[in-house]
Amino acid sequence: MAVQVLKNFINGEWVESKTEKYLEIKDPALDETVALNPMSTPEELEAVVKAAKDAFWSWRLTPPPRRQKMLFKFHEKLNDNAGEIARIISLEHGKTISEAKSEIVRGLEYVEHAAAICELLKGAYSEDVGPGVDTMYIREPLGPFVMLPPFNFPAMISLYFVWAIASGNTAIIKPSRLCPMTAIKLVELLEECGLPKGVVNVLNGTGELGNALIVHPDTVGVTFVGSSRVAEIVYKTAVNNGKRAQCQGGANNFAVVARDANLDAIMDNLVNSCFGHSSQRCFAVSNILAVEEVYDEVKERFIAQAKKFVLGRGADPGVTMGPVVSRDSLNQMLDACDSAIKAGAKMILDGRNPEVEKYPNGYFIAPTVLEAEPGMYVFDEEVFGPVRCFKKVKNLTEAVNVINQSTYGHTAVIYTENGSWAREFIRRVDTGQVGVNVGTPAPIAFYPVGGRKTAMYGDIRGRASDCVDFYTDKKVVTMRWHTPFEEGGEVKAEKLF
Amino acid sequence: MAVQVLKNFINGEWVESKTEKYLEIKDPALDETVALNPMSTPEELEAVVKAAKDAFWSWRLTPPPRRQKMLFKFHEKLNDNAGEIARIISLEHGKTISEAKSEIVRGLEYVEHAAAICELLKGAYSEDVGPGVDTMYIREPLGPFVMLPPFNFPAMISLYFVWAIASGNTAIIKPSRLCPMTAIKLVELLEECGLPKGVVNVLNGTGELGNALIVHPDTVGVTFVGSSRVAEIVYKTAVNNGKRAQCQGGANNFAVVARDANLDAIMDNLVNSCFGHSSQRCFAVSNILAVEEVYDEVKERFIAQAKKFVLGRGADPGVTMGPVVSRDSLNQMLDACDSAIKAGAKMILDGRNPEVEKYPNGYFIAPTVLEAEPGMYVFDEEVFGPVRCFKKVKNLTEAVNVINQSTYGHTAVIYTENGSWAREFIRRVDTGQVGVNVGTPAPIAFYPVGGRKTAMYGDIRGRASDCVDFYTDKKVVTMRWHTPFEEGGEVKAEKLF
Amino acid sequence: MAVQVLKNFINGEWVESKTEKYLEIKDPALDETVALNPMSTPEELEAVVKAAKDAFWSWRLTPPPRRQKMLFKFHEKLNDNAGEIARIISLEHGKTISEAKSEIVRGLEYVEHAAAICELLKGAYSEDVGPGVDTMYIREPLGPFVMLPPFNFPAMISLYFVWAIASGNTAIIKPSRLCPMTAIKLVELLEECGLPKGVVNVLNGTGELGNALIVHPDTVGVTFVGSSRVAEIVYKTAVNNGKRAQCQGGANNFAVVARDANLDAIMDNLVNSCFGHSSQRCFAVSNILAVEEVYDEVKERFIAQAKKFVLGRGADPGVTMGPVVSRDSLNQMLDACDSAIKAGAKMILDGRNPEVEKYPNGYFIAPTVLEAEPGMYVFDEEVFGPVRCFKKVKNLTEAVNVINQSTYGHTAVIYTENGSWAREFIRRVDTGQVGVNVGTPAPIAFYPVGGRKTAMYGDIRGRASDCVDFYTDKKVVTMRWHTPFEEGGEVKAEKLF
Amino acid sequence: MAVQVLKNFINGEWVESKTEKYLEIKDPALDETVALNPMSTPEELEAVVKAAKDAFWSWRLTPPPRRQKMLFKFHEKLNDNAGEIARIISLEHGKTISEAKSEIVRGLEYVEHAAAICELLKGAYSEDVGPGVDTMYIREPLGPFVMLPPFNFPAMISLYFVWAIASGNTAIIKPSRLCPMTAIKLVELLEECGLPKGVVNVLNGTGELGNALIVHPDTVGVTFVGSSRVAEIVYKTAVNNGKRAQCQGGANNFAVVARDANLDAIMDNLVNSCFGHSSQRCFAVSNILAVEEVYDEVKERFIAQAKKFVLGRGADPGVTMGPVVSRDSLNQMLDACDSAIKAGAKMILDGRNPEVEKYPNGYFIAPTVLEAEPGMYVFDEEVFGPVRCFKKVKNLTEAVNVINQSTYGHTAVIYTENGSWAREFIRRVDTGQVGVNVGTPAPIAFYPVGGRKTAMYGDIRGRASDCVDFYTDKKVVTMRWHTPFEEGGEVKAEKLF
Repeated sequence: MAVQVLKNFINGEWVESKTEKYLEIKDPALDETVALNPMSTPEELEAVVKAAKDAFWSWRLTPPPRRQKMLFKFHEKLNDNAGEIARIISLEHGKTISEAKSEIVRGLEYVEHAAAICELLKGAYSEDVGPGVDTMYIREPLGPFVMLPPFNFPAMISLYFVWAIASGNTAIIKPSRLCPMTAIKLVELLEECGLPKGVVNVLNGTGELGNALIVHPDTVGVTFVGSSRVAEIVYKTAVNNGKRAQCQGGANNFAVVARDANLDAIMDNLVNSCFGHSSQRCFAVSNILAVEEVYDEVKERFIAQAKKFVLGRGADPGVTMGPVVSRDSLNQMLDACDSAIKAGAKMILDGRNPEVEKYPNGYFIAPTVLEAEPGMYVFDEEVFGPVRCFKKVKNLTEAVNVINQSTYGHTAVIYTENGSWAREFIRRVDTGQVGVNVGTPAPIAFYPVGGRKTAMYGDIRGRASDCVDFYTDKKVVTMRWHTPFEEGGEVKAEKLF
Repeated sequence: MAVQVLKNFINGEWVESKTEKYLEIKDPALDETVALNPMSTPEELEAVVKAAKDAFWSWRLTPPPRRQKMLFKFHEKLNDNAGEIARIISLEHGKTISEAKSEIVRGLEYVEHAAAICELLKGAYSEDVGPGVDTMYIREPLGPFVMLPPFNFPAMISLYFVWAIASGNTAIIKPSRLCPMTAIKLVELLEECGLPKGVVNVLNGTGELGNALIVHPDTVGVTFVGSSRVAEIVYKTAVNNGKRAQCQGGANNFAVVARDANLDAIMDNLVNSCFGHSSQRCFAVSNILAVEEVYDEVKERFIAQAKKFVLGRGADPGVTMGPVVSRDSLNQMLDACDSAIKAGAKMILDGRNPEVEKYPNGYFIAPTVLEAEPGMYVFDEEVFGPVRCFKKVKNLTEAVNVINQSTYGHTAVIYTENGSWAREFIRRVDTGQVGVNVGTPAPIAFYPVGGRKTAMYGDIRGRASDCVDFYTDKKVVTMRWHTPFEEGGEVKAEKLF
Repeated sequence: MAVQVLKNFINGEWVESKTEKYLEIKDPALDETVALNPMSTPEELEAVVKAAKDAFWSWRLTPPPRRQKMLFKFHEKLNDNAGEIARIISLEHGKTISEAKSEIVRGLEYVEHAAAICELLKGAYSEDVGPGVDTMYIREPLGPFVMLPPFNFPAMISLYFVWAIASGNTAIIKPSRLCPMTAIKLVELLEECGLPKGVVNVLNGTGELGNALIVHPDTVGVTFVGSSRVAEIVYKTAVNNGKRAQCQGGANNFAVVARDANLDAIMDNLVNSCFGHSSQRCFAVSNILAVEEVYDEVKERFIAQAKKFVLGRGADPGVTMGPVVSRDSLNQMLDACDSAIKAGAKMILDGRNPEVEKYPNGYFIAPTVLEAEPGMYVFDEEVFGPVRCFKKVKNLTEAVNVINQSTYGHTAVIYTENGSWAREFIRRVDTGQVGVNVGTPAPIAFYPVGGRKTAMYGDIRGRASDCVDFYTDKKVVTMRWHTPFEEGGEVKAEKLF
Repeated sequence: MAVQVLKNFINGEWVESKTEKYLEIKDPALDETVALNPMSTPEELEAVVKAAKDAFWSWRLTPPPRRQKMLFKFHEKLNDNAGEIARIISLEHGKTISEAKSEIVRGLEYVEHAAAICELLKGAYSEDVGPGVDTMYIREPLGPFVMLPPFNFPAMISLYFVWAIASGNTAIIKPSRLCPMTAIKLVELLEECGLPKGVVNVLNGTGELGNALIVHPDTVGVTFVGSSRVAEIVYKTAVNNGKRAQCQGGANNFAVVARDANLDAIMDNLVNSCFGHSSQRCFAVSNILAVEEVYDEVKERFIAQAKKFVLGRGADPGVTMGPVVSRDSLNQMLDACDSAIKAGAKMILDGRNPEVEKYPNGYFIAPTVLEAEPGMYVFDEEVFGPVRCFKKVKNLTEAVNVINQSTYGHTAVIYTENGSWAREFIRRVDTGQVGVNVGTPAPIAFYPVGGRKTAMYGDIRGRASDCVDFYTDKKVVTMRWHTPFEEGGEVKAEKLF
C-alpha cells in the first residue's frame, strides 16, 4: 500500500501543505507507515483562520432549517460509508472493525442530535414583563471554533463539530496527530453534502499548532478531548486569551461490585468495559473494588474471562483486541506495571509481551491485572491501555471513599440489584458520570458528558443541548413601542374569548 | 356556636344569596349544623360570570411579575393563617388538625409553583426559520374558568385556581357543597392581597350549579376533581359545549408487597396510606397485594397497626382518625362491607360501628379490612373510606395483572428494595402514578398529576407546568420585515466576533 | 395509463381489499379516472386494528434511538423520491409540481422534527422532593392512533404519523378518499426503512371508515385535519368514546394592509397566499382588509397580479395554477359567487369558467375577487378555492374587530413596517396564528399549529413538541428506599467538592 | 448619628472582627463617616470558609422544597423592611429613596425567581436509551461560593446569592467595601427566616480579601460584578485556580435615535437611562448616537430635560439625583471631562461643581453632556457617573459600526417605531443586551444577564435559569438491571392501553 501524503482542507479545497515536516502515521499492528501527516505552516494557519472567519457571517445567516437538512444528508453519507470509515479507524488506531463500527454508531448519534438544531436553538419570549414591555432572547453563534479531537475515537469525537456548525459557527479541525485520516474522511463526506466553503476546515499538525489556533485573535473557542495534563494547559491558554473552552481530560474509573451483584449477568459487561477498544477510552473501568464477600469469586471469573481475548490486527476476522496506538503508549503501560510491582502490587494476570501471530512488530499487550492499592501510580493515574487493578473493600462506604479520594472524577460504577444502594452510590460519588450495572456509562449523545476534578476543565458540559449553550451566546432584548392604533386602540374585549 | 350563613364572592364583594334554598353543613363528629350553604340563584350565576368576564381583559394585561408578587403575598397570608384554616377544614370535613395542616403544606406548594408563573409562561422565539423570517409563540390566557373542588381536600384542591389566575385567567370557584367554608376562607385571605375585583369569585351551590357554569357561553373551561362518574359527565358536558376540561375522577389503588420488602421500614407508610384522612383521598391504597412468601406476616402486622388508630373529633388532641364526611358516605361503606361478605370476602378487621367516646352521633368507622377478590364491589370499586382489602398473589407478575385489570388507572405502589423489580413494575403498571416504597405517590406540586382510564378525563394533566398548558393557548407568530437600513445594510462582519 | 386498483397495507403486507365498492380517483385536469380506491370491509378494519394493537408493545419497547434512526432513513428515502411523490400529488390533487415539491419540503421538516424524538421524549427527575424521596416522570405512548389526513396536502399532512410512531405508538392511516395515492407511496418508502410489521398501516375508505376506526375499542386516539364541520363531529365522537383527539378544522383567514405597508415588497406574498395551491389550503388568505388610505392601490395591484396566473395541468411546465380537486368542490365555489352577487357583493375579478387550453374537462377556476362584507357567505365562510374578498376598513381597530367577529380563529395577517402596530395586532387578534408581512403564517414544523374557535377542536396543538404531548402520557413515579449502606452510611463530606 | 462598627456573620453569629484596620464608610452627601468597615483577618477568613464548608453537605441534603419555603419567607421579610433597606442604601450610596426602592423591587424579583428552585433544578430521565437501559441526570450543588457584589446596587446584586443557596450551595458574601451595610441588613433579615448556620456568611474587607477567598482551596467559585478591569483579574485568578467564575464587568452603552423615533414618548426614558442612580449603573446609556435628520432636536430636548434634575441628599424629599459614591469617583469624572475637552470635545451641558444647598461637602456632579467622538476616553471608556456624550451619525449603519467598534459589548439601544430597523439593529449589534425604545434594557430576573467582550468574563450568564447552570453540576447516570420478575416476566400487553 502506497504511503499517502495527507492534505489540509482550507476554504473548501483540499490542498497539500507547503511544509517540509511530516509525521509518520503507522499501522500499529505492523509498525509500518501508512501515511505522512504534514505539520502545517504558519501561512496555512492564517489561511485557515481567515477562511473560517470569512465564512462565518453568511453561515450564521443561513436559516437553521437549511443547516439541519445538511446534517440529514451527512448522516446518510456516514451511514453509507460506515464500512470504509471503520476500515480507516482500524488502520490508524488499531481497534477491531467491530469496535470501529460501534464507534461510528455513537458518532451517528451526535449527528442525529445536532440535526435537532432548530429545536435546540429556540430562544424565549415573554410578553408584558412590564406594562407594554416584552423581553426575549435569541441564541447567536460566536465565530470560528477550534476542534481538537483525540486519537482514540477519531470518528466519534471529531464529530463534535456538528453541533458547532449546526449552531451557526464555523470550525477548524486539527485532527489527532496520530490518527488524522479518519477526520479527513469525515470531512470529505461532509463536502459532498453541500457544505459552503470555509464552514469546516481541516489543518494537520501537532499540539503546537492547536495552541497557535487557540491564541489566534480570530478564533473564538476550543473543544478539546485528551489527557488531563493537556486539557488543563489548553483550557488555561484559551481562557487567559479570552476564548471559550471545553476541555475533557483523562480518567481513572472505578467499578464497585456489591455482594448482591448478579455475576452471571454482569461479568461480560465489566470485562468489556475494562478491555474494549484496547482500554483506550476514557470511560473504561480501570480499578475494580469488590466487597470482601464476593472478592475472590469476582476476581477469578474476571481473570478467566479476560484471558479469552484474541489479539491481532483489528481488521482481521476473529480478533477481539487490537494493539495499542503507539510504541510510546505501550512503553508507558509496561513502566506502570514495573513500578506497581516494585511498590508491592501483585500481578494476577500478566499480558505483557504477548505472542501475536503474524504481527511480531505490533504494539500489543494482552489484558493485564494487578492487585494494587491507592498510592501506587497504576492505581491512581490514568493508564491508557489494558492494565487494570483489583482491590478488596470492606463495604460500599469504603468503596465510595476510595473513589472520592481519586484526583479524577470521571465515572464510578456500581454492580448491584439493590435500589437503595444504587441511589446512595449515585448520590455520594463525586464523579460526572455514574453507572448502575453499566460499566461504561458514557452518556448517549442527547445527554451531556463531562467529568469533575481533573477530568474536565470548563463549566459547560459536552454534547447534548449543553454544547449548544457552549457554542452560542444569548442576546437578551427588551422592547416597548409607542405608536397606538389610530382609533385610540379600544379593544373589544368581549370578542377575545 | 352560631350557625353561619355563607356568602358568595362576586366581583370583589361578599354578598348574601337571594336564594331560599340552603344546605346544612354539618360537623361530622357531632352531626350538628355549623353553617348554611346557599343554593345560588340563576341571577347570581349571571352576575358571577359577568364579573369574571369583565375582569378578564384587564387582568390579562396585568404583567405576570405583578400577578406573581400577589401570589407571594398570598403565600404569606396562608402561612400566617394556617392554624385557622386547619380548624375550618377539620370542622367541616372531620379530619384531624394534623392532617389538615399537612393538607395546607401541600396547598402552599401549589402557590409556590404558580408563583413561578413568569418562568412558566415563557414562549419561544426562533430567528431565521427562513431567510429573514422569525417565528415565535406566546401563551395567552383564555377567560373565566370554573373550578369545582371536592370535599376531601377543601383547601389544597381549591387552590388549583392559583395557576389559572397566575396565567391571566379569571376564576369562579364553586366549592364542594359539603365543605365550602374552607374555600371561602382562602378567598378572604386572597382578597387581602390586592386581588382586583372579579378575578376570583365564589359561588355556592350543588353540582347542578357547576353544570350551569360550565355550559354558560361566557366561561371557557373547567377544572374538576371528584368521583369518576361525575368526572365523566362534567368532561363530556364541557367538551360537547366547546370548553376545555380537566376532570380528575376516582381511584382504586393497589399496593404490592414483594418478598424482599423491608417490613419494619414500610409498615407505617402502608397503613397510613390506607387510613390517613379517614381514607378519603384518591391516592389512598385500597387493595394490598402481598406475595405468598410474606402474605401472612404483612397481614398480621398491618392489622395490628391498623388497630392503633384513635377515633374522635379531628380537633381533639390525641385523635388520629376523624369521622367520614357524611352519613350517606358512611352508609355506602357499610353496604360495601355487607355485599363483600355476601360474596365470600372474609372480614379480618371489623371497624364498623365503633364506640367513640363523646361523639355518639358522629359518622365514624374504624379501620376495616377484608380478604377479598376481583369481581367483588369492595375490591373493584372506589370505597371512599377506611375499608381496605387484602389479596394473596403468587408473584409480581400476577400482581401487575390484577392491577391492570382494574377499570381505574390512578396509582400502583410496590414495596421492594430491588431496583430491577421497581423498574419493571413502574414500566408495566398502567396507572398515572407509581410509588416505590411510597404508599401515597401523590406528585408534589411541580410534577403533574392525573390518572388513566376512568381516573381522569382530559388530555392535559393537572398542576405543574402542565396546567399552565391547560390554562393558556399558544399563539404562533411568523414575521418578516421590509425596510432595509438606509445605507444598503452592509454589515461589517469582522466586527461581529 | 392503466387504472390502478389501490391496496391496503395491513400488518406489513400490501393486500387487495375484498370489497366490491370502489371510488374513482380522478385526474382533476382531465376528469379521467386514474385509480380505484377500495372501500375497505369491516373484516379489514378488524385486521388492521389487530395488527396495530399487536405491534404496539414490541414497538414501545424499541429504544427511541432506534426509532430515530429509522426516521433518518425515511428522510433519505423521501428526499430521493421527491420527484416521484410530487408527480403523484400533482396527478391526484391537481397542484403544480413546484407546489407539490414545496409541500414535500414542509413534510420533510415534519420528519426532521420527529427525528429529534430522543430529545422530545425526555422526562424529568428531581432528587429529594422530601427527605430521601425522589420523583420523576416518563412519557409513555398510548397504542394505535388513527390518522385522517385531508386531500389538500396529501403528503405533508399524512406525515403527521411520524410523531405518533416516533413516540412509540402504532398508526392506522386512512388516506383522504380523494387523494389516497400519495399516502400509499409514503408508506411504501417507509417500508423500505425497516418498519416492523403492524407499526404503520394503511386502510382505504371514506369518512365512515374513519368513524369506525375511531370508535373501535382498540384504538386510542385520532389526528384529523379537514373541514370544521367534520372536525367537530370527529372530535366529539372520539372524546365521547374515551379517545384522545386533535382535530384541525377549516379557516377563513384575514390579511390587513396598513397604510405604511411596503406594497412593492409584499404584493407577491399576498397574492400567492391567496391563490397558491389553487387556494386549497387552510392558511390561505381569504379576505383582504385594506385601510382606506391605500385601499384602491392595493386592490388594483392585487388584481393586476392575480391575472397573471397560468392555468393548466399541474404537471405541465409553465403552469402556475392547477385545477381544484373535484367537480363538487368547483361547484361550491361557483355557488358562493352566485350567492355573494345576489347579496350585493361586487365582482372585481371574474375567474369563473376559464378557457384552459388542452383541458376542456378540468375543474378549473381562475383567481376570482369580490368586494364583499361580513354577513355574506363568501366573506364569512371557508370557500376552499380561488374566490377571495376585499373590504375597505377605516383603520386597524376596525380591521381587528372584523377579524374577531369571525367564527373561525385560524390566522390573521398584518402588512406593516410599524413595530407598534404589529405588536398590537398580534396581541388583539383572536387567532391561533398571526403573520406580520407573511401571508401564510403556517408555523414551521418545530412550532405548534392550531386555530381557535371552530378552526380547531382539541386542547393540544399539532406538530412540534406539542404533538409529543398528544401522543404520550406522563407517568409520575415517587420513590424512597430503605437499605442503608452497611457501615451506617457515613459519607465523608469533605471529599465532595 | 453614632458611627457603627460593622460585624461579620460567621457560622450563624454576628461577630466583631479582631482586625485593627477599618475603612470609613461615608455618607456621600455629607462627606461624613457613618460606619467603620473592618478589614477582616486571615483567621476570620479561615473561619468563614470552614463554616461554609461544614454547612454544605447538610444543606445540600435539605430538600429543595424546604429551601424554597425559606425564600418565600425571605421575600416577605424584604418586603416588610423595604423602607429600612432603602434608607441604608441611600445613606451609604447616595441614591434617592425612590431609586433605592426600585432597586429593591428588582432585587425581590431575584428572590421570586430563585423561589422557583424546584422547577429549575429538575433533571431529565429517558427510558430505554438502549434495550433495558435508562439514562438520567440530576443537578448537584458544588460547595461554598464567594459573592463579590459592587457598591452601586448593594441590595439587588448582593441578592445573587439566593440562587446559589437555593441550588444547595453555601455562600460567603464579601460586601462592597464602599457600601457594606446593605448586604449586612439583608443577611440579618435572612437570619430571621430560619437560615441554618454557615449557609450564608458575611466577611468584610477589600478586594484583597475577595482574592484570598477565591484562591482558598475550599471555595468552589465566585460571582463578581464590578469594573471590567477587576472582572478580568478575578476571572483569571479563579479559573487558573480551578474555580468556576462568573464576572460581570463594566460597560459603555449606546443609544441610537432613528429619524422616526417618537421623541415625545421616549425622551424621559432616554434621559433617565443616562442619569438615573447618578449614572452609576452598568446599564446606563453613556453615548447617544442620533441620525443627522433629528440630531439637533434630540440634543436640545435632551439637554433641556437633563437640566431638570434636582440634586441633593438621596433621603431628602424632592431630590431626583444624589451624589456619586466617593470623592475618588467624582475626580475620575472630572478628569474625563478635562481630557475630553483637551481632545476637542465640546461641552454642551456643564454640570461640574454644582451648588447643592445644604451639602457643600457632598460628592456632587450634575448632568454633564459633551459632543465627543470615538478615540476620546470619555466616549470609549466607562465613566461611571453623569457625564454623557452625543455624536451625530449619518444613518443606522454608521451607528451600528460605531457600537461594534467599542471594546465593551454590554448594551445597545435603538429608538424607532420601525419593526424592520429594530430587527436589523438587534441582529447586528454585538452586545449582550439590546433595547428597543428601552434605554436601560436590564433583563428582568427571569432572563439571563451578561455582556460581551470586556463586559463579561465567563461562559454562563447571570440570573435566570442560567445561573442555576452556573451553581450546579450535572451528574449523568446510566442504569440497567438484571432481576427479572419471578414468572418469566410475561406482560399482558393487551392490558396496557
